[in-house]
Amino acid sequence: MKQLNIGIIGYKFMGRAHSNAWKKASLFFDIPFQPVLKVACGRHRDSLMEFAKKWGWEETETDWRRLIERDDIDVIDIATPQHLHAEIAMAAAKAGKHLFCEKPLAMTSAEAETMLQVCKHSGVTHYLNHNYRRVPAIALAKRMIADGLIGNIYHWRAAYQQDWITDPNFPLTWQLQRELAQAGPQWDLNSHCVDLAHYLVGQITDVTALTRRFIDQRPLAVEGAMGNLKAEAAGYGMGEVTVEDAALMLVNFENGAVGSFEATRFANGRKNKLSFEIYGSEGAITFDLERMNELQYFSTRDPDGLRGFRTLLATDENHPYIKHWWPAGHIIGYEHTFIHAAADFVTALGSGTAIKPDFADGIAILKVLEAGLKSATERKTIRVE
Amino acid sequence: MKQLNIGIIGYKFMGRAHSNAWKKASLFFDIPFQPVLKVACGRHRDSLMEFAKKWGWEETETDWRRLIERDDIDVIDIATPQHLHAEIAMAAAKAGKHLFCEKPLAMTSAEAETMLQVCKHSGVTHYLNHNYRRVPAIALAKRMIADGLIGNIYHWRAAYQQDWITDPNFPLTWQLQRELAQAGPQWDLNSHCVDLAHYLVGQITDVTALTRRFIDQRPLAVEGAMGNLKAEAAGYGMGEVTVEDAALMLVNFENGAVGSFEATRFANGRKNKLSFEIYGSEGAITFDLERMNELQYFSTRDPDGLRGFRTLLATDENHPYIKHWWPAGHIIGYEHTFIHAAADFVTALGSGTAIKPDFADGIAILKVLEAGLKSATERKTIRVE
Amino acid sequence: MKQLNIGIIGYKFMGRAHSNAWKKASLFFDIPFQPVLKVACGRHRDSLMEFAKKWGWEETETDWRRLIERDDIDVIDIATPQHLHAEIAMAAAKAGKHLFCEKPLAMTSAEAETMLQVCKHSGVTHYLNHNYRRVPAIALAKRMIADGLIGNIYHWRAAYQQDWITDPNFPLTWQLQRELAQAGPQWDLNSHCVDLAHYLVGQITDVTALTRRFIDQRPLAVEGAMGNLKAEAAGYGMGEVTVEDAALMLVNFENGAVGSFEATRFANGRKNKLSFEIYGSEGAITFDLERMNELQYFSTRDPDGLRGFRTLLATDENHPYIKHWWPAGHIIGYEHTFIHAAADFVTALGSGTAIKPDFADGIAILKVLEAGLKSATERKTIRVE
Amino acid sequence: MKQLNIGIIGYKFMGRAHSNAWKKASLFFDIPFQPVLKVACGRHRDSLMEFAKKWGWEETETDWRRLIERDDIDVIDIATPQHLHAEIAMAAAKAGKHLFCEKPLAMTSAEAETMLQVCKHSGVTHYLNHNYRRVPAIALAKRMIADGLIGNIYHWRAAYQQDWITDPNFPLTWQLQRELAQAGPQWDLNSHCVDLAHYLVGQITDVTALTRRFIDQRPLAVEGAMGNLKAEAAGYGMGEVTVEDAALMLVNFENGAVGSFEATRFANGRKNKLSFEIYGSEGAITFDLERMNELQYFSTRDPDGLRGFRTLLATDENHPYIKHWWPAGHIIGYEHTFIHAAADFVTALGSGTAIKPDFADGIAILKVLEAGLKSATERKTIRVE
Repeated sequence: MKQLNIGIIGYKFMGRAHSNAWKKASLFFDIPFQPVLKVACGRHRDSLMEFAKKWGWEETETDWRRLIERDDIDVIDIATPQHLHAEIAMAAAKAGKHLFCEKPLAMTSAEAETMLQVCKHSGVTHYLNHNYRRVPAIALAKRMIADGLIGNIYHWRAAYQQDWITDPNFPLTWQLQRELAQAGPQWDLNSHCVDLAHYLVGQITDVTALTRRFIDQRPLAVEGAMGNLKAEAAGYGMGEVTVEDAALMLVNFENGAVGSFEATRFANGRKNKLSFEIYGSEGAITFDLERMNELQYFSTRDPDGLRGFRTLLATDENHPYIKHWWPAGHIIGYEHTFIHAAADFVTALGSGTAIKPDFADGIAILKVLEAGLKSATERKTIRVE
Repeated sequence: MKQLNIGIIGYKFMGRAHSNAWKKASLFFDIPFQPVLKVACGRHRDSLMEFAKKWGWEETETDWRRLIERDDIDVIDIATPQHLHAEIAMAAAKAGKHLFCEKPLAMTSAEAETMLQVCKHSGVTHYLNHNYRRVPAIALAKRMIADGLIGNIYHWRAAYQQDWITDPNFPLTWQLQRELAQAGPQWDLNSHCVDLAHYLVGQITDVTALTRRFIDQRPLAVEGAMGNLKAEAAGYGMGEVTVEDAALMLVNFENGAVGSFEATRFANGRKNKLSFEIYGSEGAITFDLERMNELQYFSTRDPDGLRGFRTLLATDENHPYIKHWWPAGHIIGYEHTFIHAAADFVTALGSGTAIKPDFADGIAILKVLEAGLKSATERKTIRVE
Repeated sequence: MKQLNIGIIGYKFMGRAHSNAWKKASLFFDIPFQPVLKVACGRHRDSLMEFAKKWGWEETETDWRRLIERDDIDVIDIATPQHLHAEIAMAAAKAGKHLFCEKPLAMTSAEAETMLQVCKHSGVTHYLNHNYRRVPAIALAKRMIADGLIGNIYHWRAAYQQDWITDPNFPLTWQLQRELAQAGPQWDLNSHCVDLAHYLVGQITDVTALTRRFIDQRPLAVEGAMGNLKAEAAGYGMGEVTVEDAALMLVNFENGAVGSFEATRFANGRKNKLSFEIYGSEGAITFDLERMNELQYFSTRDPDGLRGFRTLLATDENHPYIKHWWPAGHIIGYEHTFIHAAADFVTALGSGTAIKPDFADGIAILKVLEAGLKSATERKTIRVE
Repeated sequence: MKQLNIGIIGYKFMGRAHSNAWKKASLFFDIPFQPVLKVACGRHRDSLMEFAKKWGWEETETDWRRLIERDDIDVIDIATPQHLHAEIAMAAAKAGKHLFCEKPLAMTSAEAETMLQVCKHSGVTHYLNHNYRRVPAIALAKRMIADGLIGNIYHWRAAYQQDWITDPNFPLTWQLQRELAQAGPQWDLNSHCVDLAHYLVGQITDVTALTRRFIDQRPLAVEGAMGNLKAEAAGYGMGEVTVEDAALMLVNFENGAVGSFEATRFANGRKNKLSFEIYGSEGAITFDLERMNELQYFSTRDPDGLRGFRTLLATDENHPYIKHWWPAGHIIGYEHTFIHAAADFVTALGSGTAIKPDFADGIAILKVLEAGLKSATERKTIRVE
């Protein structure tokens, strides 16, 4: 099988999740190329070497520009914080590399527009890794909605709730600094939910938002120790939190639905709870990422007196992605969404077709998120252009 | 035991729920007066007579003014649609009757202010029946919050979802007409949720809202056939729906919390689902009215590795109201909240103390709801005065 | 409306639940007679008087024989511990009184057979109050099974779990003494589950059982303080527990299904958790009394990929008993099962038809329970005769 | 890192799950040897070759005896149906190979005893893959019980429910033939539950059981098409089902607890639902494999009025195995239990210590299962020797 050489930039939480995906994709899916873990790239040589050895990356680089210059790399996998995405993506696209890029796409939609233009000009495939589209239960929801099972949609209600920074002594990691992250949960979490809303419901036309910061100062963080939603305080001072801690939005959709979003890192007891409810004229669907193998489905077409929300355990052979895994009832987990993304990405490369979501989708998401920040500042509704 | 003569106005859904409460309060609670179902009042004599006979109301009146003139009535129970509340309440208060009034309090906060002034001037007790405060699980939540069990509150997230008008052929009942109802779910459902937010979290300082009507015209309804969330179409034409079908709000609280509200009659599969989530610095509490005997509670004080949302079945003897009912695990239902209200109301009369929520609380609720409607129209944040 | 004079014997937990039922039945149901709370009977005059006053029983008696002699009593409501059932029931039946009898029916099936013979000879109506048949969700399950919705039944799996005696200092109440109770959870709890199995699945042909006592001695109890699953220790000594603390059974049904039962008072965290699962050739149904308004339903007839257990909230107008109560989504509670029983009982008296379950059903239950005790002793399977 | 050469026998459902485990163990865990997928062995060359290529097994063999003769193999991974386990295991042990053996261990406990003797004599490590011990939530339950969090155990209540053969046209696969499988769910499913009971509660002293076959004849199956709980009918006749379809047991434990087991392939709607409840003097724990990242925990030590079953999402860093995976709230799946087993197995080889469960545990399980079959036949309680 022809090989597909991957160069990855970033080796923390996402670096691991992506490495695992590149290694496993061909074991469970029939894909046209064999992904090769060719070069891992990061700034800190020691931890990079350890990562590369663990995961079998053949070589390492500490300068991402050198990685991009290499002729033997087919795909650049961007697993860095978002403030580096644009520069890397554009350089890589210009060098003819296909792009597998972590979310959120960029710091601004303007930046993202430029990224997309470069990709189009270079003719490379660009994939934006909003991995939750590839949760089988969510892909099933998409199919059900497309099949008309819940009719016309009236309501989208989403929340993405975490609690990893409720401790005031949690340090000032990059995620809490505007110059590195652009925003807090609005970028990190609502980007996922807006992507899902675009995917499942439709385009958003206006946004009314409210944001809030609950803790203004935090201990400075030890650099390099910030992966995996954990971090260590450096012990020598405090710094300003410059992003919001919570971001809420109300929206209108082009198709007449209304929607709400709530993203927070201050919901004690919620670890990674992305939940949504969709109500339509013929039924309803709800989902909770902490029980990601399940989908709740209500149908008005069930007989009178026998209607109720049913728990679909999305592990049947005919559910999306599942025939590649285990028998019904044998659940899969978070990491599998990355494997699905890698498999679909390689398949798209093989057939020369596009894969969704891509940078154009990323731009649309960022425009909604930007409208949200603007609305929160100006305290009025903002149209999404 | 001294008797307390009740005169009720209205005999549909709320008329039944209140009658049941007046009859049962003394059976399960030790209250200082025996409520007597003295006079039932309504416009349609035949159905009124049937109601009165069924429930043991000793007499009937078809003109509420005559009821209020009677010397033998101690309490006026207002169980009519809201457009009648102000006139009845003020007349009754002037006549020295204590008031047990259904929610929402009135058509406007200005109207409600006048109601309150009259009550104060007359010295009568005024109770506004936001009955959900008296769900044992919610009263337990209040106690837990007051005891500091979840610390300072960051988030309030509420939804009140129903589906009784998703059918486009559901007729144009009074609840769908602005001149009779003032608003749709914003008045009917969000009034409950704002009351609970005031009760459990604190005062709201500003509101940003979005409302939506999904269906503009409906068949005209048969008059008099509109109780119990059911109705019959008259068969001779269509009329304009003049209230919203869904109302969403984002709010700030005085104490620094942020909140969201979502109220709709278009959530297929949800019958009477009032749910809320409260996240604080030390824990969290969530509730769902369709499982109203339960409360979910998360505590950061639990040992590391043993933390999780626990289901409190609020039927223990030491839970609010429960010692008057059945052994642990033997659940109660919707109607019991009215019995609790009746018992507390009679107790308050006995001791000469106030009972909450009262008309002042109703004014505060209406101001938030009005700010919501204004925000939805003007598409900007509105301060609650 | 013609009156139906009730005489009740017993005034503790069941006395209250029955009194409430007699008072409320006519308010919510159209029944042919008006139950009158005529005479309450009990041994302790002071607490009896208090009870009678609270609930409006017109008169009291401390000797149940005198009650039965009265000409003005139509119905004897037996709300005593089971060791008194037979004597009372037979005397009352001989006096021509209709019988509304608490469960379990008697101390032995032989005793129960005699009771039934006397009733038949006297021509009185005999009702055995296994009230859970009249939980709307369970009556709905019955209807669904009768309609063939789950096909032929393969499995019945039931548990009735409580925890009110896990504290070793909980005193030796009558429920823990063989001469007063005959058995522990086998009589008290499994009687309910066997009744439901007979109702929903069919007749049981053989039983294999295991029983266990976890605590052999307990403090003696203050007499008269044993209602409502609570009790006080007398403080002057210990006594032998002479019933089992847990009773488990495996059974075969006549129709080819297999079943299991598990009843215990030692399941910490379970207050009144009666749960069952039924699996058939076309679907499945499960139930949990702590969420008694809900029924879980799985259908193999749902489309492939869209199958799952759905939560039926058994509060729709077309669900059993519900049209007499509140709109959909407004739940009812434990006490309502007694009201349903009272309404159906009065209706049966009015039409001169039988009501189920009756003493014949009680005999069938006791035979299964006796086979269980025998099996547990002999450690072998026992046929139910 | 020193390599550990694996030879696997069997390449269906378990072959895939094991291959995945051997490949991933070193990526997520620090283990002393690098497992090498050296030789895959199976009878059907074409599908074997396809399997080996997919998973990267370096070589293939169609005769397991030749595989065992090879000097370069360290571990024999037995992923065949159970009727082949004994012969393979004994040959491999005699050849000095360490054993990683699928469950159930063997056809009989006598056979298993011989297997253990050979292993002991050869000094090889023997692991029996009851993989559910290595579900993080179950390992957490073990730790909690060991820490005394639920006190002395009173009750174990387990069920393992599937529905893959409810269709009468599902063919006669090897799992339904006594000479190949020895028994039905008693071997396949109850072996897991008995293992967990031994692990979490203690030794079982006697068994009372009931088994049932619901369908006696099925279409003959196409050979070789029976993996993954699916199969194809051959289309040329029917054959006798010679195992039970359901197996229920009641047991006593040495430590005074009582237990129940229910295993079936006829529970429509249940795909792979292994659930258990454990009640102790200080609390309770429940688990459901279809939500395998969660554990329900009740503690009597929680404050009065604040007690309830809490959902532990077993994805915290300090939960067993989790620090090797993803941040809290990012769930894992079925396949991870095999990776944990592989990692622990390799670690045990590195340190020269034993790993549990082993063949001795397998013997204990089989003795309970055999007592169950005997009890079901003789209809009496059987002591476990």
